[in-house]
Amino acid sequence: MEKREIIIDLLGSDRGAEEMLEGARMALEAFPGVSVVLSGPRALIEAAALPEGRYRILEADKTVTNLDNPIEAFYSKEPVSVFKALEEASRCDDVIGVISAGNTGALFAGAIRYLLADKTVRPCIAAILPNTQGGFTCLVDTGASIDCGPAQLVDFAHRGSDFMRQLYKLDAPRVGLLSNGAEPTKGNKLVKETHALLSKEEGIHFVGNIEGNKTLSGLCDVLVCEGFAGNQVLKNSEGMAVNLITEIIKYGKTHQVPAAQEIAGYLMSRFDFASLGAGIMLGTSKVVMKCRGSSQRTAIKNAARMLINLNENKTIYV
Amino acid sequence: MEKREIIIDLLGSDRGAEEMLEGARMALEAFPGVSVVLSGPRALIEAAALPEGRYRILEADKTVTNLDNPIEAFYSKEPVSVFKALEEASRCDDVIGVISAGNTGALFAGAIRYLLADKTVRPCIAAILPNTQGGFTCLVDTGASIDCGPAQLVDFAHRGSDFMRQLYKLDAPRVGLLSNGAEPTKGNKLVKETHALLSKEEGIHFVGNIEGNKTLSGLCDVLVCEGFAGNQVLKNSEGMAVNLITEIIKYGKTHQVPAAQEIAGYLMSRFDFASLGAGIMLGTSKVVMKCRGSSQRTAIKNAARMLINLNENKTIYV
Repeated sequence: MEKREIIIDLLGSDRGAEEMLEGARMALEAFPGVSVVLSGPRALIEAAALPEGRYRILEADKTVTNLDNPIEAFYSKEPVSVFKALEEASRCDDVIGVISAGNTGALFAGAIRYLLADKTVRPCIAAILPNTQGGFTCLVDTGASIDCGPAQLVDFAHRGSDFMRQLYKLDAPRVGLLSNGAEPTKGNKLVKETHALLSKEEGIHFVGNIEGNKTLSGLCDVLVCEGFAGNQVLKNSEGMAVNLITEIIKYGKTHQVPAAQEIAGYLMSRFDFASLGAGIMLGTSKVVMKCRGSSQRTAIKNAARMLINLNENKTIYV
Repeated sequence: MEKREIIIDLLGSDRGAEEMLEGARMALEAFPGVSVVLSGPRALIEAAALPEGRYRILEADKTVTNLDNPIEAFYSKEPVSVFKALEEASRCDDVIGVISAGNTGALFAGAIRYLLADKTVRPCIAAILPNTQGGFTCLVDTGASIDCGPAQLVDFAHRGSDFMRQLYKLDAPRVGLLSNGAEPTKGNKLVKETHALLSKEEGIHFVGNIEGNKTLSGLCDVLVCEGFAGNQVLKNSEGMAVNLITEIIKYGKTHQVPAAQEIAGYLMSRFDFASLGAGIMLGTSKVVMKCRGSSQRTAIKNAARMLINLNENKTIYV
C-alpha cells in the first residue's frame, strides 16, 4: 500500500500546539492507513508520545501571528512552521495535503510560493457548507482574497465549478453571485461588473444574484463573492447557529424542556461550522485545508478526514 | 390630544397593497390614538372599508420597482406613492412618520429630497437587532449606501451613536467596525481606512473591529459597515434563523418530539427579523421606517408600534 502522509502545522492556532497535537493523535487513531508529518517544536512533539512509526517531525519554532505581516515573515531567516509544512508538501510525493489553523495570509502566501497548480491562477479558499436542500454549497472566496476585481471573481466561479463537478459529479454546477438583491440591477460596483462578466462567461452555469438570506438555501452549488463578504457569510452563519443553539439550551433549562438538549444536539451535528467548515484552498497542486484559529482537536481530525476523501476521489483543483 | 398620523406607502411591497392595507387595519386596532394616511390607489383603499375618520388618502397609482431606476422615477410626471408619502410627511405637522415596504433606493432618494434633517449629512438605514446579551445592537448601514468611502462610515458611527444614546439612554454607545478579523490589521481597504479614522474620532467610543460571528454578541451597541456588508449581515442572520427554526420543526415531526414546536415558537419570537427588524432611517427630520419587501401585515403593525415609540421618546436622528 502506498504511503500517505498528512502534514499538520502545529503553530498559529488560538488553542495552542497541544490542541493541534491532540487533533493529530485523533486522526492517527481514526485513519490507520495514514501517517502525519508535524511541523513545530521538536521537544513538544516528542513529549506527546504519538504512536511510533506513524509520525515524523519538521522542526520549526516560529509562527506568523495575525498581527504579523505574512510577507515579511516569508523572508524571515528562522524556520516558520507553515512555510516548512508547505515546502515539504511540494517536495514529497507521499504527502497528500496540509492542514493549518494559523494565519490565513501566511498560508495563502506560502501555498502560492510552493503549491501553485497553474501560474495564471490565483488560488482562493472555499468552504463547503450544508444547505437546507440537504446538499452542499461551495462558498468562494471565504477570506483569502480581500479587495478583489471582477476578473478574480470570475476565476473563483471557475475554481468552485471545477471543484463541485469533481467532488459531487455535477455536470453543470449552478453558480450564484452574492448580492444585496436578487435582481441584476442590485449590487455594489464590483458585483454589477462581475454579473455582466459571468452572464457571458463560457463554462459557467450562471444563475444570477443570490441574496444574503438565501446563501444556504441550495439555490446554487457555487456561491461567488470577494473574501470580505464571504468571510461575513461564513462567520455570520456560524455565529447565528451558535446563538440559536445556545438559546435553545438556555430555554430548555429555564423552562424544564428536556427535549431541548436533543434538538440542540441535532442542530449542532447539522450546522456545526467549526468542525464542518474547514476552508479548502482551490488552485493548488495538493490539498491545503485552512481550519479556523479556534479549532478544537475534533475539527482537526475532521479536516484530515475531508483531506483523505478528497485525495481518494482524485479531486484536483484546477 | 394632538393628532398623530402615520403615513403608509401601500405600493412596492412584494405581497401587494392588500397586505399593507391589512397592516394599516391592524395598526389602527392596536393603537387607538393614531390615524393613518394611505398613499396608493383610491379605489383599493375605499374598498378596504377602514374605520371612518381614522384614515385619509393620498392618491397615487405608480410605484418604483426593483428594476426601475429610482432617480428616473423621481422625475416621473405620474404620482409615485412613496414620493407622495414623503412629501406629505414634510408638509404636515400631524404626521409622525412614514412606513414603506417598497424600493429602498426610491425611499432613500425621496427622504433626502423631502426630509433631510441637515444638508451636510447623508442619511443611512439602521436595523435594531436583538443580541445574545439580551440587549440590542444598531447595525448601520443595512443597504441604503452601497460603495461608501471611509468618511461616510464615520458619519454612520455618529448617526448610530446618537440614536442609541437617545433611544436607550446610553452615555457612550460602544461602536464596532465590521471586519474579517478582530485585529486592527484585518479588513479590506475601506475598513482599514475607516479604522484609522474612527480611532481618533471625537464623540465616538470606538471598541475596534468586530468579526462576522460576533455581530450579535453584544460586544458593541453600534455596528458600522457599508451597506453591502450590512445587508449581508442582516439577511444572513435572518436566513440562518429561518433555516434553523425550519430544521427544528422538521425534526420535531419526524422524530415525534412535540416540544420542538414550543422551542421553534420561542426562537421565532426572539429572532424573528422579518417582524422585528424594520430598518430605521437615521438623519431625517421625521421617522422613516423601511420594512422588508416581503413583510406581512404583522410586520407593518410592528413598524407602526416602533414608530410611535420613537416619536414618544422624542428620539431624533441628528
